[in-house]
Amino acid sequence: MVAKEDILQASERIKAYTHRTPVFTSKQIDELLGGSFYFKCENYQKAGAFKSRGAVNVVMSLDEASVRKGVATHSSGNHAQALARAAALRSVPAYIVMPRNAPDVKIAAVRQYGGQIRFCEPTLSAREESLKAVIAETGAHEVHPYDDFRIIAGQATAAMELLQQVEHLDCILCPVGGGGLLSGTALSAAYFSKGTKVIGCEPLGADDAYRSFKSGKLIPSLKPLTIADGLLTSLGERNFPIIMKWVNDISSVSEQAIIDAMRLLFERMKIVVEPSAAVPLAVILEHGIPKSAHRIGLILSGGNVDLAKLPF
Amino acid sequence: MVAKEDILQASERIKAYTHRTPVFTSKQIDELLGGSFYFKCENYQKAGAFKSRGAVNVVMSLDEASVRKGVATHSSGNHAQALARAAALRSVPAYIVMPRNAPDVKIAAVRQYGGQIRFCEPTLSAREESLKAVIAETGAHEVHPYDDFRIIAGQATAAMELLQQVEHLDCILCPVGGGGLLSGTALSAAYFSKGTKVIGCEPLGADDAYRSFKSGKLIPSLKPLTIADGLLTSLGERNFPIIMKWVNDISSVSEQAIIDAMRLLFERMKIVVEPSAAVPLAVILEHGIPKSAHRIGLILSGGNVDLAKLPF
Repeated sequence: MVAKEDILQASERIKAYTHRTPVFTSKQIDELLGGSFYFKCENYQKAGAFKSRGAVNVVMSLDEASVRKGVATHSSGNHAQALARAAALRSVPAYIVMPRNAPDVKIAAVRQYGGQIRFCEPTLSAREESLKAVIAETGAHEVHPYDDFRIIAGQATAAMELLQQVEHLDCILCPVGGGGLLSGTALSAAYFSKGTKVIGCEPLGADDAYRSFKSGKLIPSLKPLTIADGLLTSLGERNFPIIMKWVNDISSVSEQAIIDAMRLLFERMKIVVEPSAAVPLAVILEHGIPKSAHRIGLILSGGNVDLAKLPF
Repeated sequence: MVAKEDILQASERIKAYTHRTPVFTSKQIDELLGGSFYFKCENYQKAGAFKSRGAVNVVMSLDEASVRKGVATHSSGNHAQALARAAALRSVPAYIVMPRNAPDVKIAAVRQYGGQIRFCEPTLSAREESLKAVIAETGAHEVHPYDDFRIIAGQATAAMELLQQVEHLDCILCPVGGGGLLSGTALSAAYFSKGTKVIGCEPLGADDAYRSFKSGKLIPSLKPLTIADGLLTSLGERNFPIIMKWVNDISSVSEQAIIDAMRLLFERMKIVVEPSAAVPLAVILEHGIPKSAHRIGLILSGGNVDLAKLPF
């Protein structure tokens, strides 16, 4: 699994290539919502999202023989950019399988970091087959976006830092899609805090983690639909048991709450976040502050939003 | 005028009530533009703009007898919010004269800080008359948005801090509207740096400072038109001689460059800025890096933008 030592090693490994992102506070938001909120700004992370942590951790942990032929993944999101950037740091190729209908802005971002894109039909099976073909052809090392212990250890460093930066947090809220960030956050809270609770935050329109958590069975998403495009994926097999064991609760929220939270972050805190990053604050807006919590950490997971498509 | 000691005193006076704002950098922007850029983030200042510095400096420097009946100004911009907030800190009223057609979002912001709004017709003469009437009626102390040495000393603290936070700046670029920020920045560069140059940045559509600077005569704006709504005002009488003496150059830019710069700040740096704040970066985009400069400071003057009206 992922031991305390794995997270500490990941933190050392990625230090030179990622930001120790700042923690922002806002008196206005504290007054509005009646708590003390600490925002871990992964929107200021390299490549604009926490995904750089896991991607760099994997790429930098591979020995020369394993990494020489490059790395590969299928993703149209932040993992694609993060992996392309991480591969460039080691001067090896990154093969990114993307659906033909991926937005131009995402394609451009991957190319900007030197990623080599292979287009496929926009279905999960086509993506998986194309990825297999690319790996067979190139010998590249596969780096899954979340269902990978090395990725989990990398993503865990965000919460580890937050717990160093802010003392005595009662709880940490973070978004959940595939579960890489949430499982990592839960492990860091278990290893590096004295009882800080962890709550996964999910859109109602893609609430497979909520349903899986409540039922104790891994239930994949069927036709997820939400503005939080980073959270469309279903929980990973390696992530689910960690989440079942260490996460305190999962809360799901409406699209309107996500939009309201995003707007609040833009207007009051003057920061650019993507919709997925606003989901934890949306949970506070819609459901209030978690019981007996006052000092609350929120992980703002990323800032890669298409400005032409802001929901306000 | 404004002595070095006035700026140092302003800095002490406002310290407890304003932020020492952070300086952001971006490797992407440095690579794109070929320099080292340091962004002084006054968009994270209290009330969302550098205007809090001057307003707090004035309000906190007044003795009890002078401040007791409150403060007054005419403004529909950031000075209005900043003054309302500063007055609230001393528990005295702030009377803000605003044109009837001021945007709802600006009215709400002033009210949020407890400002008492007096509406008038949207002409300069109506604003000045209404302000006189309010002062006659209430006995409030007038606080001009920029044509005031105490305001200039307050605004000067932004550049003073920047020069403390970043060593060896070759130049500082800042927006110019009425000239409060620019005259203060120029004085701080003169007092606290070894030869850091200062360049005022102005929209072509409101280039009275450019024309005044080049001709040596104070030429007011006639029908200014620009997206940079904080820079519509004409240079103040007290600001102009300081600018003539201490500012190295004034550069004006197109609306398209302002929009492009604003987008760059949102997309690459993930920060929310108002159009006026993007004008210095627009100067770099449109005219390139100032001659023989490499380490360049830019003052991001504020972040109060109507998100429903973003130009992209």
